[in-house]
Amino acid sequence: MTTHLQVLLESLRRLLRRNAHQRVAHILVKARREDVASVLRFLDEPQRQQVFELLPSDEARAGVLAELDAHIVERLARGRSTQQMARVINLMSVDEQARLLSSLTEELRAELLAALQAALHPDEARELEELLHYERDSAGGIMSTDFFSLPEETTCEQAIRALQGARDVEMVFYIYVVNAEMHLCGVVSLRELVTNPPQRTLAEIRTAEVISVKLSSDQEEVAQLAARYNLLALPVVDEHNRLVGIITIDDVIDVIREEATEDILKMAGADESAFEDSSVWSNFVTRAPWLFATWLGGLAASVLIGVFEHQLEQNVALAAFIPIVLGMGGNVGTQTATIMVRGLATGRVVYGLGGRYLGRELGVGALLGVFYGLLLALYAVVRYYADGALPLGLTVGVSVWASMVTAAVVGASTPLMFHRLKIDPAVATGPLVTTAVDVLGILVYFLVAQRVMGL
Amino acid sequence: MTTHLQVLLESLRRLLRRNAHQRVAHILVKARREDVASVLRFLDEPQRQQVFELLPSDEARAGVLAELDAHIVERLARGRSTQQMARVINLMSVDEQARLLSSLTEELRAELLAALQAALHPDEARELEELLHYERDSAGGIMSTDFFSLPEETTCEQAIRALQGARDVEMVFYIYVVNAEMHLCGVVSLRELVTNPPQRTLAEIRTAEVISVKLSSDQEEVAQLAARYNLLALPVVDEHNRLVGIITIDDVIDVIREEATEDILKMAGADESAFEDSSVWSNFVTRAPWLFATWLGGLAASVLIGVFEHQLEQNVALAAFIPIVLGMGGNVGTQTATIMVRGLATGRVVYGLGGRYLGRELGVGALLGVFYGLLLALYAVVRYYADGALPLGLTVGVSVWASMVTAAVVGASTPLMFHRLKIDPAVATGPLVTTAVDVLGILVYFLVAQRVMGL
Repeated sequence: MTTHLQVLLESLRRLLRRNAHQRVAHILVKARREDVASVLRFLDEPQRQQVFELLPSDEARAGVLAELDAHIVERLARGRSTQQMARVINLMSVDEQARLLSSLTEELRAELLAALQAALHPDEARELEELLHYERDSAGGIMSTDFFSLPEETTCEQAIRALQGARDVEMVFYIYVVNAEMHLCGVVSLRELVTNPPQRTLAEIRTAEVISVKLSSDQEEVAQLAARYNLLALPVVDEHNRLVGIITIDDVIDVIREEATEDILKMAGADESAFEDSSVWSNFVTRAPWLFATWLGGLAASVLIGVFEHQLEQNVALAAFIPIVLGMGGNVGTQTATIMVRGLATGRVVYGLGGRYLGRELGVGALLGVFYGLLLALYAVVRYYADGALPLGLTVGVSVWASMVTAAVVGASTPLMFHRLKIDPAVATGPLVTTAVDVLGILVYFLVAQRVMGL
Repeated sequence: MTTHLQVLLESLRRLLRRNAHQRVAHILVKARREDVASVLRFLDEPQRQQVFELLPSDEARAGVLAELDAHIVERLARGRSTQQMARVINLMSVDEQARLLSSLTEELRAELLAALQAALHPDEARELEELLHYERDSAGGIMSTDFFSLPEETTCEQAIRALQGARDVEMVFYIYVVNAEMHLCGVVSLRELVTNPPQRTLAEIRTAEVISVKLSSDQEEVAQLAARYNLLALPVVDEHNRLVGIITIDDVIDVIREEATEDILKMAGADESAFEDSSVWSNFVTRAPWLFATWLGGLAASVLIGVFEHQLEQNVALAAFIPIVLGMGGNVGTQTATIMVRGLATGRVVYGLGGRYLGRELGVGALLGVFYGLLLALYAVVRYYADGALPLGLTVGVSVWASMVTAAVVGASTPLMFHRLKIDPAVATGPLVTTAVDVLGILVYFLVAQRVMGL
């Protein structure tokens, strides 16, 4: 959080506590809507309602609403009548409306939609309903329908004039060229428009190969295309290659940030709801299932240790090294798995070359294992010097090595395998790696102990 | 990796194997430079050199070079003379040149810079040298010096004409308004330019409050500002508020992706080099230090277990539950820490509200602990039914609970503490949480065992 947001937050809190509503309103007139939205997250419920109320106009409220997280919108809606909320939402663009409504609970959405459709122009109401049909994380779900397209026979001069008249189209980067059936058949940049002779037609100056996405394309694919080809906007086409919307770069940025956060949290078995004012119970429900895999792995380890109880009874010092053998394996496994999962997500790791990474990770795991195995063997020998410590040292050293090698192989191959099976590696890898390392680590440990220590 | 990239990669491989160079050249004429750069990553060394050689022109080579990772550029440079490389780099824009050179090893940079400066126009050479002075991840290091600024007394009509003449300025989104001293004093959008009367001056229509960054601003701050305010470009000013460059949205996207990857890898103690063709040894060197913390934690756990050796001898079944007690704690700690680290990085978690998150995580940890503690106690009672299993069940149940609560508190408070101390929470949190959980988990486990089981 930057300093000026902190200053804004603290000023609002102080003034609200003093009921200095006029001064709050004064601050809100000058604040940027994105800043107001950020600050609302950190205010408590009554303060939030007051700030939203004190915004200078419904236009300002609509601007702030477009930037808010769904769970805060839902709380704001509780403090206001459906009519009041609908009046504000009515001032947003249709794609903003669709994005907002689709993120709300079904009940609230139905209520607001009913109130909204009474107020909207029939064309807009139909468009809104259409947009609400697309999946939230598809191209159709994030696109804007305010795009700028012109027939191919338009001249450059006519195009410039059309552009000057189009006030409501927020960000025009490219002019999409369509034929009589609205099929996307080319693109012209603003630069090309102004640097070509006025009488030339768009058909003559267009770039025919346009990178476009389908309505059903995943938002992650959209983001990757925009990032890869440095595009400022991507046209969205329906199944007949008819232009139906565009996705602009500012929305792509939001997608990239959102997907990165999602990936990071998924690897730890959590999700975005962790950032909301969600209850302890709902967090419990999200996070418990992922931990169940760890629990099962731990249980398997415990059963295995039970099998080797006899060996443990003979040399109880063995127990002291169980955590470090498993811990070193677990952490190397996490390192390797993280590298593979992120590599697959960003296209830096490619399935077809899996063998290359596997070989490298095996090498790194083996080298790390030699280093830390030796270090631990040394410690064990010194620590248990009195009681014939050489076999114990050998056992823990070899086990740390074996556990780290195993972990590296499992950590590298599991994400590749899940990727191949079209299971999200970010979710599935963590628990599997921990469990595999726990079970294999214990097994190796006691088998080596049996052999080396003659237990 | 998308299908068409895979097709391109496989076609190139097949044709190169057959020495069908003309067909490779033919494919390369039509391929997008971003695709060629992606594919080069996955070719082996001689194939890479061949493809780079077979590109249609030095312009095409310059385009591909601008998209490549530094370690691949370095390999390409080895197969070509410094003069050849400099000739290609000469065709890039000055900011692309600076970005490329600053990512290379010092030796190669010096060589190329010497060859380049002989070929460059003195103005460009000076500009390049200036750009190379800025930190790689600062605003100065990522900015472009091809921006479009006009004096405040310019009329809209003059501005449009100036814009039409400016062919080499790649992406013009905003016109920056400067006074006689080149101080940034406003901004005008292209839209405002074309919708205002031609005789009005920029001073009359400008927005005076411009969001800008300093030369030394961190690239992460730049990305956050651009994302927050949906900006297409950010002006960069020097210490006297003189406009010296701009950062465009396509570079911001690269920064956001890069920083997300960096954050994810840092949490596992790895870095970007894991994606390069780096050697096993260099990976070992990067990853070993982070694991040392785990090693120390494991060692501490082992020393502690040694202290309780007497108890273990009396009831060796205790050893079987050590992995699960530590494992459950470790994983809850990772969940909590991941949420906090990512929340702090994206501004969703704010230091001042640390108490709120701490309370929630404590609650979630406690609830998860109750659930998994009960589950494990039940198992232990059933499994060891014969030998007075109730105290053992109680011990493992309470210990799992305590270890999970501890982990949640440590996992939530450590990132906040590091953030406060201006230490990067992503790097430091992981090892500290594992170590704390290992030591505290063992301690709780045996203390509870002593008390409950009367050992």
